[in-house]
Amino acid sequence: MRLTPAFAAALMTLAAGTAAKAEEGMWTFDNFPIARANQTLGTSIDQAWLDRVRLSSVKFGGCSAGIVSGEGLVMTNNHCVSSCVANLSTQAVNYAETGFAPRAREDELKCPGGSAEILTEISDVTARMHAAGEGLDGQAFTRARDAEAGRIEQEACAGDASFRCQVVSLYRGGQFKLYKFRRYTDVRLAWAPEDRAATFGGDLDNFSFPRFAIDAAFIRLYENGQPVATPTHFTWKSDKPVEGTPVFVSGSPGSTQRLLTQDQLMTVRDVVLPLDQLIASELRGRMIRFSEESEENAFIAMDPLSSVENTYKRGRGRMAALTDPAFMAGRAEAEADFRRRVAANAALAAQVGDPWGDLAAIQPVMRELYPAMALLEGGTGVGTTGAGGGSQLFSWARTLVRGAQEREKPSAERLPEYADSRLAAVQSSLFAERPVYPSLEQLRLEWWLSKTREWLTVDDPRVRALLGRESPEGLSERLVEGTSLADPAVRRALWEGGLAAIEASDDPMIKYLLSIQDETRAVRADWEARVEAPTSRASERLAAARFAAYGESVYPDATGTLRLTYGKIEGSDVPGQRWGAFTTFGGLWDRATGAPPFDVAPKLLAAKDRIDPDTVMNMAVSSDTIGGSSGSPVVTAAGEIVGANFDSTVLTQRNAYGYDRNVNRSVIVTTAAVTAALRDVYGMERLVEEMGVE
Amino acid sequence: MRLTPAFAAALMTLAAGTAAKAEEGMWTFDNFPIARANQTLGTSIDQAWLDRVRLSSVKFGGCSAGIVSGEGLVMTNNHCVSSCVANLSTQAVNYAETGFAPRAREDELKCPGGSAEILTEISDVTARMHAAGEGLDGQAFTRARDAEAGRIEQEACAGDASFRCQVVSLYRGGQFKLYKFRRYTDVRLAWAPEDRAATFGGDLDNFSFPRFAIDAAFIRLYENGQPVATPTHFTWKSDKPVEGTPVFVSGSPGSTQRLLTQDQLMTVRDVVLPLDQLIASELRGRMIRFSEESEENAFIAMDPLSSVENTYKRGRGRMAALTDPAFMAGRAEAEADFRRRVAANAALAAQVGDPWGDLAAIQPVMRELYPAMALLEGGTGVGTTGAGGGSQLFSWARTLVRGAQEREKPSAERLPEYADSRLAAVQSSLFAERPVYPSLEQLRLEWWLSKTREWLTVDDPRVRALLGRESPEGLSERLVEGTSLADPAVRRALWEGGLAAIEASDDPMIKYLLSIQDETRAVRADWEARVEAPTSRASERLAAARFAAYGESVYPDATGTLRLTYGKIEGSDVPGQRWGAFTTFGGLWDRATGAPPFDVAPKLLAAKDRIDPDTVMNMAVSSDTIGGSSGSPVVTAAGEIVGANFDSTVLTQRNAYGYDRNVNRSVIVTTAAVTAALRDVYGMERLVEEMGVE
Repeated sequence: MRLTPAFAAALMTLAAGTAAKAEEGMWTFDNFPIARANQTLGTSIDQAWLDRVRLSSVKFGGCSAGIVSGEGLVMTNNHCVSSCVANLSTQAVNYAETGFAPRAREDELKCPGGSAEILTEISDVTARMHAAGEGLDGQAFTRARDAEAGRIEQEACAGDASFRCQVVSLYRGGQFKLYKFRRYTDVRLAWAPEDRAATFGGDLDNFSFPRFAIDAAFIRLYENGQPVATPTHFTWKSDKPVEGTPVFVSGSPGSTQRLLTQDQLMTVRDVVLPLDQLIASELRGRMIRFSEESEENAFIAMDPLSSVENTYKRGRGRMAALTDPAFMAGRAEAEADFRRRVAANAALAAQVGDPWGDLAAIQPVMRELYPAMALLEGGTGVGTTGAGGGSQLFSWARTLVRGAQEREKPSAERLPEYADSRLAAVQSSLFAERPVYPSLEQLRLEWWLSKTREWLTVDDPRVRALLGRESPEGLSERLVEGTSLADPAVRRALWEGGLAAIEASDDPMIKYLLSIQDETRAVRADWEARVEAPTSRASERLAAARFAAYGESVYPDATGTLRLTYGKIEGSDVPGQRWGAFTTFGGLWDRATGAPPFDVAPKLLAAKDRIDPDTVMNMAVSSDTIGGSSGSPVVTAAGEIVGANFDSTVLTQRNAYGYDRNVNRSVIVTTAAVTAALRDVYGMERLVEEMGVE
Repeated sequence: MRLTPAFAAALMTLAAGTAAKAEEGMWTFDNFPIARANQTLGTSIDQAWLDRVRLSSVKFGGCSAGIVSGEGLVMTNNHCVSSCVANLSTQAVNYAETGFAPRAREDELKCPGGSAEILTEISDVTARMHAAGEGLDGQAFTRARDAEAGRIEQEACAGDASFRCQVVSLYRGGQFKLYKFRRYTDVRLAWAPEDRAATFGGDLDNFSFPRFAIDAAFIRLYENGQPVATPTHFTWKSDKPVEGTPVFVSGSPGSTQRLLTQDQLMTVRDVVLPLDQLIASELRGRMIRFSEESEENAFIAMDPLSSVENTYKRGRGRMAALTDPAFMAGRAEAEADFRRRVAANAALAAQVGDPWGDLAAIQPVMRELYPAMALLEGGTGVGTTGAGGGSQLFSWARTLVRGAQEREKPSAERLPEYADSRLAAVQSSLFAERPVYPSLEQLRLEWWLSKTREWLTVDDPRVRALLGRESPEGLSERLVEGTSLADPAVRRALWEGGLAAIEASDDPMIKYLLSIQDETRAVRADWEARVEAPTSRASERLAAARFAAYGESVYPDATGTLRLTYGKIEGSDVPGQRWGAFTTFGGLWDRATGAPPFDVAPKLLAAKDRIDPDTVMNMAVSSDTIGGSSGSPVVTAAGEIVGANFDSTVLTQRNAYGYDRNVNRSVIVTTAAVTAALRDVYGMERLVEEMGVE
């Protein structure tokens, strides 16, 4: 089809503004631009194709995954099962080291606390949600909205534990949708490679390409002790992928901030990322040294350290974007275009008011409140920090104490995470059997207490409440040594005993969490009233203005819910990123030095002669992406799965704030490589056959 | 004196621009605004007073100090002698723990590698220096300037080891002065308190007020085995200080960047500080964990950890300034005023050209080259990182290898730090007997290698040269275990053996440093040619424009050379800093919790009943300040010493980029507190009497 000049000019105008460019956008399944995608890619997908892809897509923890057989078999990344692997391992039987390759299906092992979900239904609840907040301000606004969401969820899902309902805010409050998920809580590990086969190059090669990592693993959905029948699934394709092939990536990207105003972005650049990154860097230093102290410590810290390094490196990519003058000039121009469009429409301008100015006025407050909110409560939606520094024991105690206090109230008056509609998920996570390593728990708590004291300053009343006359070293040791919460039975008894059991408990961790509730809840209330609520209100006006200015050709920021993106298998040719689309096993053998993290995993190395060195290992794809897409199935227009997304490049981290097709690349582990690994390395022909490969 | 309205208006205009405000400025002694200071403070100092203060002021390492008796006794901060104390201590005889209180003068101990200097003469060499660079560009420019400085220094000081000469660049190249110093290389520790008495509150109270720290110590200058006669010295004043008293602070503030353009400041904000801070934070984490592993490690890491924490906290204050919208708006307005003044004068504008634009054009290059320069060479003048990560063994090897290579050439063609005029200082530092702790050396090297690999990326050819096929862990261990450079005799033999000895050496650290010279020298050459030289040239035009626009009422950026500042004893009353001018021993007893770092040092605690609780311990002073002023004598218009500067507040760190009288406060340990400590705690009446106190 040839474009008329006028239509081409209109497209150019769109491209300069905030309307989505070709291949841009993490689209919801109920607003996917089918025509535009088909036109851009030369494909012909339709609604039936979309439905099949959605029903074959799985959310697994913070990751994505895809169903690949009729018997509940699901592919995701190895790094998405790494905490499952760690939880199933001991230093003696360490599946991270050996890989996990069960001879028979009966040997598949349940992931403690694991759950998987498939999105079955989407409905619009915008009107109800907007009405709930009408005329309210501050914390009253936040709480009314939260309560309404809880009610909607409860109405739609109550009484059926095999479903979960969630009210999803899209376009920063511009729309609210009810998502209904089929939920599976018996998820078993079906195969994982040796960790080093999945992490070759370690932190150094992370967020980069060329890449040589079999970052894939399989889980299986079970129900009533049997594998779940999954007639709707992707078709496994083990052939060599072809450059230029159109592909779609279906998964749950975590969070983007593309709709933030310039002033909001400056707060992220100046306050949020520096705090998060600086304290993460110190934690990393403590963990590295901890790992070096003994083999036991190395085993304990392996997965947590990777996780800290991953978050930290992602943050570095984001800081680089926010401090890149050219990139930021593009963002500023997009905002200017938006404001010009609104100003050019007098009625719209009058109706919208000045949400930019309102958001600017919130920033000094947010800058002031962010450290306390991030360190004492977490969950600000912009940063990555949180109370307890990642201590599992602390986190359980917090859930027990707050859960008990909140359950004394009617559902609508509770903190939203304890609304009736969410208690099932809280419980299944709380009761799961997981190993606890006191030495690491203590390290995390000590670090968190000392960083909180440092950032809020020693004379802050919240810090006084946190520490009393104790030191971070002494207090963390006392709490970790004295608590019994590592025992799931203890946790269950305390949960079921309610507030009376909590208040009667002698457990020092429980007593500690009880003692800091006033101060920490006040921090959250202050944040909700002075930052969250006014931000939501202004953002909703901004969203309305955006729809008016750009029509339906806009997509919402990522929020950890299912999205579909599209692009091509393609290399990159910009400064700092010049490479072809593929890597091969041959490239792996070349890159290996033998010194960690550039050592090839032993079983993989032993299979060297059995693997065709030209087999494609990893590939780059141009579809719009952000963290959380890990494990997302990469599928063709024919519904064949050709890989799983496991990473993107450091430069791509700018995607959090704005799409740039030139640098945006996802990194994919190919089904070709996984087939070779299953068949030639790990003796898992069983799974290959199950997926219908000859 | 009452101001006429016109004169007052003129002052207002000045205040809005970059001319110095009342009390602003770290002035050189040959351009001190005597009249203005007298007018502002109501004092009547004169040239003779200035000369006496200059000749009583001492530079000691990176610190400042003041002569307080006729027998070479000098007061500085305890943290300025902490590495001397560490070098003289063992885990068994640990002066940091016990304090150092020699019964008799004969028991004073020489600080290894310590030297002290007094500024005796200043002369102008601007014309010679500017002529040397005339018509040159890039590295040729840098080298010609360096060579001329070496020649000037050599002509003025050659042959007399008791003097050191240094060409000082002021106003970023606007002026060059030759500073001549009387130099003392036998500096002995005369008294130091228990470390905790000087560091009460540790890192948490560092860079803050109210403060309760006896951060003072005494050294003594020796020559030919005898104390040096110092007839010119300050008068010790042990009385209670009085709020509002005018005071002068004489010392060598390290470095400010007030004359940087907006574009240059953005580079510091976006690239320099983030790199420095992020990697320092990880080093801190590694060191904290290292310290916790054993008592021996705690002893080893004590001083280095404090030093890392101090630099890191200073950096946080600076990041806060550069990300403070109000503060940065003030800086932008000052630059706009400057540019308007230049633009308003056609002749000046034509002569000056566009140095702002020229500096802006350098920034993308600087942003690109900074990580390699900072990590592989250091000494960029803006950051705090450096090659070897602070490993003493690495640093010695580097001096030995480069010194040998450079001494093969004529002085004018060498790297400037190895010019003939500077070899004496290089040697005395290299030959000094200092303890070396292999475990800490290995930690530092490993950290540096791994951070360099991370920031430059694993495939960078410089990183390949640095690591070969080794890992940071393995390489650092091999080098530290194999080297003999801890032995000063080995270092001396290698230095004296010249290039032949270096090339014949089997020492792995020497061989390693030899092997990385090509790559690391290339990084420096590139930086000098593409960043340093064009920056110098543009900055000099900017300096000329500044003199033309604002006259002589401007002062140069701090450069680690002697300056005089003035202000008053005064509290603070701005958000985040509301307190009176003084703290007392009574306040210390109140603040102590017993848990480190809020535990009172044992000897100090034991003396509690002997000390008047109303004795003023620390005080705040409004004079312009920046790091490096540590130990600076605080003196009255009568030439009495009333304290030693030992800190400033976190908010004051903005002083690096622009003066703000409202928040700018130095933190001073009073002579009243030191007198009480000497007399009532440490049994040092001997020194009190020597200073003439009854």
